[in-house]
Amino acid sequence: MSRWKDLSSGEFALLDTVFWSTGLSRDALAQRSAFSKTRANAAVAGLLERELLEEAGLQASSGGRRAGTLRLHRGLGVLLGADLGATGLRVGVLTPDLQVLARHVESADVRKGPESVLSRVRALMRQLLTEAGLTPRDVIGIGMGVPGPVNFEGGQLVNPPLMPEWDSYSIREDMKADFEAPVFVDNDVNIMALGELWRMQRTLQNFLVIKVGTGIGCGIVCQGQVYRGATGSAGDVGHICVDPAGPRCHCGNLGCVEVMAAGPAIARMAREAVEAGQSVLLAETLAATGTILPEDVARAVRAGDTAANAIVQRAGSLIGQMLASVVNFFNPSHVFFGGSMMRIGPLFLASLRQSIYQRSLALSTRQLEIQVTPLGEQAGLIGASVLAMQETLRMNGAAR
Amino acid sequence: MSRWKDLSSGEFALLDTVFWSTGLSRDALAQRSAFSKTRANAAVAGLLERELLEEAGLQASSGGRRAGTLRLHRGLGVLLGADLGATGLRVGVLTPDLQVLARHVESADVRKGPESVLSRVRALMRQLLTEAGLTPRDVIGIGMGVPGPVNFEGGQLVNPPLMPEWDSYSIREDMKADFEAPVFVDNDVNIMALGELWRMQRTLQNFLVIKVGTGIGCGIVCQGQVYRGATGSAGDVGHICVDPAGPRCHCGNLGCVEVMAAGPAIARMAREAVEAGQSVLLAETLAATGTILPEDVARAVRAGDTAANAIVQRAGSLIGQMLASVVNFFNPSHVFFGGSMMRIGPLFLASLRQSIYQRSLALSTRQLEIQVTPLGEQAGLIGASVLAMQETLRMNGAAR
Repeated sequence: MSRWKDLSSGEFALLDTVFWSTGLSRDALAQRSAFSKTRANAAVAGLLERELLEEAGLQASSGGRRAGTLRLHRGLGVLLGADLGATGLRVGVLTPDLQVLARHVESADVRKGPESVLSRVRALMRQLLTEAGLTPRDVIGIGMGVPGPVNFEGGQLVNPPLMPEWDSYSIREDMKADFEAPVFVDNDVNIMALGELWRMQRTLQNFLVIKVGTGIGCGIVCQGQVYRGATGSAGDVGHICVDPAGPRCHCGNLGCVEVMAAGPAIARMAREAVEAGQSVLLAETLAATGTILPEDVARAVRAGDTAANAIVQRAGSLIGQMLASVVNFFNPSHVFFGGSMMRIGPLFLASLRQSIYQRSLALSTRQLEIQVTPLGEQAGLIGASVLAMQETLRMNGAAR
Repeated sequence: MSRWKDLSSGEFALLDTVFWSTGLSRDALAQRSAFSKTRANAAVAGLLERELLEEAGLQASSGGRRAGTLRLHRGLGVLLGADLGATGLRVGVLTPDLQVLARHVESADVRKGPESVLSRVRALMRQLLTEAGLTPRDVIGIGMGVPGPVNFEGGQLVNPPLMPEWDSYSIREDMKADFEAPVFVDNDVNIMALGELWRMQRTLQNFLVIKVGTGIGCGIVCQGQVYRGATGSAGDVGHICVDPAGPRCHCGNLGCVEVMAAGPAIARMAREAVEAGQSVLLAETLAATGTILPEDVARAVRAGDTAANAIVQRAGSLIGQMLASVVNFFNPSHVFFGGSMMRIGPLFLASLRQSIYQRSLALSTRQLEIQVTPLGEQAGLIGASVLAMQETLRMNGAAR
C-alpha cells in the first residue's frame, strides 16, 4: 500500500487508464491519457520503477509491429470479489489486472441474514487466500455485489425486498473482522454491468445488463458510466407492471414482471402444468424430488418438453414486454442477459428477443443487439473486482 | 465573430462556464473553472478587455457582501431560437445570456412540409430581427427544436411519424437562404430538457421532461447531460404500450400511450362523450364550432364538467402508468411536465402524479418531485437558444 503514498493525481489517472485498458501498448496509453507522449512516457517509466506498473509481454499483433503492453503491477497485492445472489454466492481472489487466482461457488440463502452469510463469505475468502499462498494483508481492495438496492456511499442495503434482515446492516464493519482493506458494495446487476464495461474497455457507452434469476434487475451504463439514479434505485425493473390483473408481488403491487416471469414464477408455472397433466417429464421430476426447481424446467426445455417450452416462452414474452418499454425510453446499443435463468438456453433468449423487437419502436431497435452477457456467469465476480480496484484507486487518488 | 478567433481552449471553457452560470460572481466562477483563482482572474480580465464577457451588475445578496457578476458580452451578437411543435411554432431573438429581445408565437401545421414551414420561420426571424434593430449578420447561432427523432450531427429528422415529408430534409441548407450563422437542431423535448438544465445551472443531474401535446415525448437528463441514446431516439416514450388491446397507432402497434392519451385522443374521447350524451357543455361546443379541440376539453374541465374530468383523469392515468415503468427504471429526482396539454390545469397534473406514485416502486418515488416545467411554455424557446449558444461555443472552441 505504501507504494502509492507519494503519487500525483496525474499518476493515479494513468494507473486508472492502464486498469481500464488491459493489453494497451505504451503508445496507445499515451494517446488515451491527458499527457503529451513525452510526459506520459516519463510518468510510465516512474511507475515501472516504483513497481506500480509492469510490462505484460507483447500485445497480439493487429497488423502493425508488436508493442509492449502494460498492466498494474501484480506485486501491489490482490483483490477479493464476492457476488452474492439470492440463492448462491461466488467468491474469488484476483490480481490487479483481474486474472482469477482462485475462486469458489456454492449455493446460499441470503434470507439467513447478514451475519451468517457474511461470516461464510469471509471464511471462504480466507481459505482461497491461503490456497493461493496469500494472507489478508495482501488484499488491497474488496468488492461485493448484493441482490438488492444499495446505498453506494454507505455500502449498505436499503429496504431490500428479498432480504429484509440486511436493511442498513454495515457490511463494511462486518468485513473488518478479517480484512483491513477497503470494502465497496453495489447492487448485483450494477457490478455485472461494470464488469462488462471493463471487459469492453468502455468501447460501448450506452447498454443494459438484465439479470434474470430469483428476481429481475437491470444494470445501466449511460455515457460510459454505471448509472445508479437519483437515489440509487435505477434499474429496478423487476417491479414494472406487465399485467394489472396479475398476481400480487412481495412488493405489494399487482402483476410485477418479477412475480410473473422470474425463477420462482417459472417453477410455479411448471407445478401448475403438472397439476393440469400437461407434462409427463415434469411430473416425474416432482414425484422423484418432491419439488420442481427452475433448473428442472430448463432441463425439460432442453429435452424438448412442450409444456416447459410454453412456460419459458411466456416468461420470455413478459420480460420482453417490459424491456420493450425500457428500450423505447433508453435506446441502448446492446441489451445483455445474464443470471441463472439464462441457463435455460437459446429458446429463452429467442423469446426475449422476439418480444422486444415486436413491441419496441423500429427506431430504437434498428441497431439494437440482444445477447447473453459476454462474461457469462463470471460477470458478477469480475465486476465486483473492477469495483474494488477502481474505487481503491479513486480513494487513494482523491486523497492526494 | 472575429472576436473569438484567438482564444485558447481554456478561455472557451471559461466562456462556457459563464454561460451555464448566469449571475455567478467572479469568485464563484473561479471555483467552478479548472483554473486557480489567480489564473481565472487574469483570464476573465482578458475576456472583459476583448469584450467577450461583460459585468452584469451586482448579484442579489445572499447574506455576504455583494459581488459583481459576469455574463457573455451582449456585443457578441444575438441568438435565434425556434420551437416547432406539431401544431404551433415559437420564434425568438435572444441575447447571449438568454434575455428575450423579441418573440412571436403562432399556430402552424408541420405536415405542410419543411419548405413551407421553414420559409415562414425564416420570415418571422427576419421580421423579429428588424423589430429589434438588427440584421442577419448580428446572429451568432441558431437553435431549433422539432417534434420528431433527430440525427443530431446532421441536423435532420429521421423517419418522423408525425411529419414524414421532413425525413432527411436538410434544415441547415434551408436556413442558409437567409442566415450564415451555424444551425443546430434537436428533438423538441430534448431542447425543453436542455432549457431546464440551463435554468437550474446543472444543479439537478438526473431528471425527465415530459411533453404532452399532439404526441408524447420525453427529454432525459442523465449525469448532468442531455442523453440522446445510442441512435438518437432515447425518450421516445409515446409508443410504449399501455394496453395490448388498445387502438392502432400511426406507428403500426396497438395501444401506444400516445394514441390513447395525447391531445387527439383527449379530443376523440370528448366526441365520444358527446355521442353518449354525457356532456351538455361539450355538445354545445361541438354544435357551435363543428369540432372539439383539446383546448375545449381543457375549458370544460375548468368549468367543472364531469365527463371532461373523467376524460382527463383517464389520460393522466394512462400516461402515469407508462411513466411508472420509466421511473422504476431511471430513478430520476424530478419529472417535469410541459406541452400544450398541461394547459388543462391542476386536475391533469394530479392524475399524472397519482398514477405514477401508485404504480412505481416506493424506493424510486421516495424523493421524486413531479411538477410542471418551471420555464413553462418558454422552455422550448429557451432550450433552442441554449443549444445555439452551447454548440456555437463548442464549435469555436473545438476549432482551436
